[in-house]
Amino acid sequence: MTESKRLAVLGAGAVGSAVVELAASYGYTVTGYADSTSAVTNPQGIDTTAVTAHKNTTGRVGNADPSTLFETEYDVLIEATPTTLGDAEPGFTHVRRALEHDCHVVLANKGPIAERYSEIMTLVDTSMGSLRFEATVGGAIPVMGTIEDIGPPTVTAVRGVLNGTANFILSRMAAEGIDYEHVLAEAQDLGVAEADPSFDVDGTDAALKCVIVANVLAGGTNEYTLTDAVVDGITDIPGSALELAAEDGRTIRLIAEASPEGVRVGPRLVPQNTALAVSGTQNIVQIETKHAGQLNLSGRGAGGSETASAVLADVGRLPSLSK
Amino acid sequence: MTESKRLAVLGAGAVGSAVVELAASYGYTVTGYADSTSAVTNPQGIDTTAVTAHKNTTGRVGNADPSTLFETEYDVLIEATPTTLGDAEPGFTHVRRALEHDCHVVLANKGPIAERYSEIMTLVDTSMGSLRFEATVGGAIPVMGTIEDIGPPTVTAVRGVLNGTANFILSRMAAEGIDYEHVLAEAQDLGVAEADPSFDVDGTDAALKCVIVANVLAGGTNEYTLTDAVVDGITDIPGSALELAAEDGRTIRLIAEASPEGVRVGPRLVPQNTALAVSGTQNIVQIETKHAGQLNLSGRGAGGSETASAVLADVGRLPSLSK
Repeated sequence: MTESKRLAVLGAGAVGSAVVELAASYGYTVTGYADSTSAVTNPQGIDTTAVTAHKNTTGRVGNADPSTLFETEYDVLIEATPTTLGDAEPGFTHVRRALEHDCHVVLANKGPIAERYSEIMTLVDTSMGSLRFEATVGGAIPVMGTIEDIGPPTVTAVRGVLNGTANFILSRMAAEGIDYEHVLAEAQDLGVAEADPSFDVDGTDAALKCVIVANVLAGGTNEYTLTDAVVDGITDIPGSALELAAEDGRTIRLIAEASPEGVRVGPRLVPQNTALAVSGTQNIVQIETKHAGQLNLSGRGAGGSETASAVLADVGRLPSLSK
Repeated sequence: MTESKRLAVLGAGAVGSAVVELAASYGYTVTGYADSTSAVTNPQGIDTTAVTAHKNTTGRVGNADPSTLFETEYDVLIEATPTTLGDAEPGFTHVRRALEHDCHVVLANKGPIAERYSEIMTLVDTSMGSLRFEATVGGAIPVMGTIEDIGPPTVTAVRGVLNGTANFILSRMAAEGIDYEHVLAEAQDLGVAEADPSFDVDGTDAALKCVIVANVLAGGTNEYTLTDAVVDGITDIPGSALELAAEDGRTIRLIAEASPEGVRVGPRLVPQNTALAVSGTQNIVQIETKHAGQLNLSGRGAGGSETASAVLADVGRLPSLSK
């Protein structure tokens, strides 16, 4: 039983770089690290400090071809490249390569399991490796692990606020009485919203997370992709709607829900000062169960070290590989 | 690898009986079941429906001596007898016997790990069996599993409302403006408080839970027992204190905290309408971390099926026994 797992980290954005930075403190060795144009590998473990400095100077993690990442010795592939829709490439191919090598995979990239869930699960079935994806839903919040522990067949619905950017905008609109366009500009200045915020504000990101939850709850009896979700965003909400809601003791939140009726994302009226009315970039997830009542889990739904923490929790839960 | 784990359930109160009732739906077989005066065993699985009916009629689960429970074939001992202080007997001996037989143990009984943590961990070290105890802290709320996944060395503090009875009383005192004695009588009528409520209202129960958390966070470098906790209860709080707090936008909750400074339980002022100000019998736990910010987990902190759900989640997390 070798507990010192070797990680190959693919993706050098906020999440991938935080995984590389924190891995040693959790007792793991990073034997490979790649971004879209380069890679560095060392079966004894890369020098993470030197590599991070090299990346900060040159913009690249190493000098080798990115594909050499798969040639190093590793136990777990950390797939932290950007989420893509449709064929979920190149993430899907990365996952396939690692599972075909009987290695584990931990996903931070939502694409492969939101868009091609059954194909991925077929690959898992024929591999000695396992797949985990806590980091894809709710950042630091232990959503998938809790659903797994409680038992997906005993979970009747999952709902919550799963996009911090949209929640920040709605919170500010309600608090300041200003319109969407003005708050969006502020959010972009603060780095809370991207230059093109559509992925967050049109509900796509929350829907992808909910599709992943729905696939796990369905346990293979049904497969969901983004096209199965009924999705409304927040771009058309006037400031006056939030004022009207407030007069009635309520506010508006972008609520995502996975239930036997499917996946739905849209603005909903929720009572002020209750669990679903989280503020700012916080996320909250409510898990409805048959035997354990309702669980509320809230915390930071995004951020490099927060999401890396979920990735490393997944690594800790992986069984030992008996190759 | 045998995934169909066999359970020996010791204790036939609300938690033990709910475990017996739910086990089959999670894919587990109950091969033994004992209360304080009797036992029933069957290596192929007891008839849980018949046994439950027998217990409801006669008050006993079976006709055999309780000690025969340990002679049946089982993989996991579920220890759900009442929590006792000091030597934590007979729970401690039950745990020792199962671990010495290289079986796993899942605790709902807080005594052994709150009062004799290092002795228990020494027994675990020399056994093929593992020990889990999610159900001892916060009922259905996944407190211990989340701390384990995040990594105890990266958790800086854990605080929260860990006793539903005390929280119900404080919530009602604040909402109705009535005194402790009157609300206690109401809580006893409703079955929320016991005839002798001292374990809940003097802070002992919350302190035991926090001692368990503190032992896990210390990771063996320090051992805590109930005598190390600084504990104040809620019996001396006048209704006027809650009125004064409300005038200032605050309320009073019995807050338990485990941190590097030790274990403290006592009434604290907390802002109204914030996470710590949960209502009624709800529990909430805040986990402060180095890398993942603050996580808030809330839900039902007690109840038969809720606590059994945590027990069965623990069973699911146990590794396969390779005997």
